[in-house]
Amino acid sequence: MDDETLRMTMLFDFFGDLLTDKQREYFDLYHNEDLSLSEIAEKAGISKQGVYDNITRAEKTLEAFEHKTGVVRRWQETRAGLARAETLASKLLGLHNDGEASELVRDLIQALEDLRS
Amino acid sequence: MDDETLRMTMLFDFFGDLLTDKQREYFDLYHNEDLSLSEIAEKAGISKQGVYDNITRAEKTLEAFEHKTGVVRRWQETRAGLARAETLASKLLGLHNDGEASELVRDLIQALEDLRS
Repeated sequence: MDDETLRMTMLFDFFGDLLTDKQREYFDLYHNEDLSLSEIAEKAGISKQGVYDNITRAEKTLEAFEHKTGVVRRWQETRAGLARAETLASKLLGLHNDGEASELVRDLIQALEDLRS
Repeated sequence: MDDETLRMTMLFDFFGDLLTDKQREYFDLYHNEDLSLSEIAEKAGISKQGVYDNITRAEKTLEAFEHKTGVVRRWQETRAGLARAETLASKLLGLHNDGEASELVRDLIQALEDLRS
């Protein structure tokens, strides 16, 4: 998944319910299900231009909410911090291959992975 | 800070820029600066009822955005997960009081604390 697609997916994840039903449906088919504008137009029984307009408006709405709240930017920063913490925990695991400490480190890595997903 | 105040502060932190200038100003003075409705009314030169109406509308707007996005709920879950990870890391620190492992654990705890703040 390229950065722009990931960004659109995250914007949709957080702010998707703020879109109209049509915007949400076409955005999801285009960005998450990877259908073409023509395929969505055929499926929905409307013009390709109509699909395009809805998706463009949806993208603008999502970007406007992100601009006002910084939710996706903050979540990306958190994920980056969690990845750094996981790197430290993995180094720790290299120091302990068994025993109580090793078990704690494994639990810790699992907890960090769960948070990032 | 009680749970409701913390919740209002977090809602304001994420969604405050979606409010009108007046809603944002009075909400901030009331919930974050702990001024009374009368104090805000005097300061702003409007009626106490006017202040109350703006704050109530602001609270409803913030709650509506939270209902649609779950941003504060998700952030609270992340913070709880980070606290659990910190507990595991603190137990690890109990097993190493010095050396390379101890330094890694301290860095890890610091990284987790930074993420929670």
